[in-house]
Amino acid sequence: MTDPQAIAEGAARAMWAKDAASQGLGIRLLRVAPGEAVLEMPVEPRMANGHGACHGGFLFALADSAFAFACNSFDRRTVGQACTITYLRPGRVGDTLTATARQLAQAGRSGVYEVRVTDPGGEVLALFQGQSREVGGALTSPPPAPAAES
Amino acid sequence: MTDPQAIAEGAARAMWAKDAASQGLGIRLLRVAPGEAVLEMPVEPRMANGHGACHGGFLFALADSAFAFACNSFDRRTVGQACTITYLRPGRVGDTLTATARQLAQAGRSGVYEVRVTDPGGEVLALFQGQSREVGGALTSPPPAPAAES
Amino acid sequence: MTDPQAIAEGAARAMWAKDAASQGLGIRLLRVAPGEAVLEMPVEPRMANGHGACHGGFLFALADSAFAFACNSFDRRTVGQACTITYLRPGRVGDTLTATARQLAQAGRSGVYEVRVTDPGGEVLALFQGQSREVGGALTSPPPAPAAES
Amino acid sequence: MTDPQAIAEGAARAMWAKDAASQGLGIRLLRVAPGEAVLEMPVEPRMANGHGACHGGFLFALADSAFAFACNSFDRRTVGQACTITYLRPGRVGDTLTATARQLAQAGRSGVYEVRVTDPGGEVLALFQGQSREVGGALTSPPPAPAAES
Repeated sequence: MTDPQAIAEGAARAMWAKDAASQGLGIRLLRVAPGEAVLEMPVEPRMANGHGACHGGFLFALADSAFAFACNSFDRRTVGQACTITYLRPGRVGDTLTATARQLAQAGRSGVYEVRVTDPGGEVLALFQGQSREVGGALTSPPPAPAAES
Repeated sequence: MTDPQAIAEGAARAMWAKDAASQGLGIRLLRVAPGEAVLEMPVEPRMANGHGACHGGFLFALADSAFAFACNSFDRRTVGQACTITYLRPGRVGDTLTATARQLAQAGRSGVYEVRVTDPGGEVLALFQGQSREVGGALTSPPPAPAAES
Repeated sequence: MTDPQAIAEGAARAMWAKDAASQGLGIRLLRVAPGEAVLEMPVEPRMANGHGACHGGFLFALADSAFAFACNSFDRRTVGQACTITYLRPGRVGDTLTATARQLAQAGRSGVYEVRVTDPGGEVLALFQGQSREVGGALTSPPPAPAAES
Repeated sequence: MTDPQAIAEGAARAMWAKDAASQGLGIRLLRVAPGEAVLEMPVEPRMANGHGACHGGFLFALADSAFAFACNSFDRRTVGQACTITYLRPGRVGDTLTATARQLAQAGRSGVYEVRVTDPGGEVLALFQGQSREVGGALTSPPPAPAAES
């Protein structure tokens, strides 16, 4: 299988099957392509923080999942090393948010991805930047050995 | 009430009561003090990612809650502006993780906080840095107006 | 003067005239537009670090100047609050590097900008993300009062 | 040579000898220890930005040099991967600033360091966090091969 789009979809299926976290958050995978992923998540009442808006951790989790699907879309096992999120507007309970991830750059085993979290009106709620690192092995086959992540 | 410790505890109680997100994640608030907070969270199976470790979003959510309690411990309503997390070791399902937040610096309405997420053996799993901004009003009284967060 | 491009150029001229730092680094301002700026800098031997490559501080300084020109291009005095840089490839002494800054998002007085630092072959050496905040006043007129930056 | 302090000093000497950038910025290395470094730099007029304060690039360069000396203090060649700086107060021309770097955590070949940049009164002007990665070889001997940094 050498078609990049088919590889991306195969890697996403393999990852999704084991991704209890994204499933439990009500996340849906809308689209995956080489270096890209689009996910959505409804903001549920259980996600509200002490200020009455969507807890930053859930905005982050949505963005982080989009990052994970995008950076694993080449079917090379890849983990996040560091991430930065900047909050621009609060997320409202009841809204379904969209996270759009894309690769900005890659050098050797390291990559940088951008994720935008937007509300139903298309306003950017948060910008996320993730640094990825390939750790060896494929998503669609068992890992070669216990993963050393650093 | 002018005792800083009593203020910190009052602000934490007010915040916790409305913080459905932290409660729903199984987070427990162990300690709060001026500029500081210590929280813990058990890593449940629903928090596992596609690689079988704790999803970065939940490590982040724990750290972000600790950050929120620490930066609101002066009973001045404060929101996160931007956060960075660096992952050092994977979190294991079944472990209870601890997040320890403390203020590094403050200038005007802006602050910087560090949060360490550690496993039961004291190993650092993740380092989080959060930038805070006071938005006006107190936690222990209603906000003066709809909060403009930026 | 209400043409956004003319405003951007006027703000850039006013800023450049006082920007001893960018001038002293051999930086040249190639282009400015609303929310955008393109600068270049030759990597001189004085910029080499202990590993023989361009010191990260100079890559950062180039990116930071591009960020500053882009976020001040609306002629509203704006300062950087926090910046993140990710290094992908070392910069070589003798090369002229290009920094391309553009606005990713804006909410109230806060903005987020991306800067790419590329080498003569177009390879991305570093990705920079900057968070900006307007502090009041214009570049093309004296500031209203001693700037409180936070 | 197995004394950690002697190793740190030897690595710093080897690094400093080639560090044209730090030397050219007027930086002085005050102290190095395992995982730590303290440097100072006078803010010269050539370092002023278009707002009349120390250009963020020079605050960053000072912090980045402190980070580099700290993370190379074990005499294992180490490069920065990503750095975040948060500005709290402007730096004044004429002041001598101090950067104090220390290791926060290490896991495998990856480390995280904090650097505080302070003014002569001890006020924190900027907080810097750097992520390091060992690339093989020692500072006090030639590198084994052209360094692949990612």
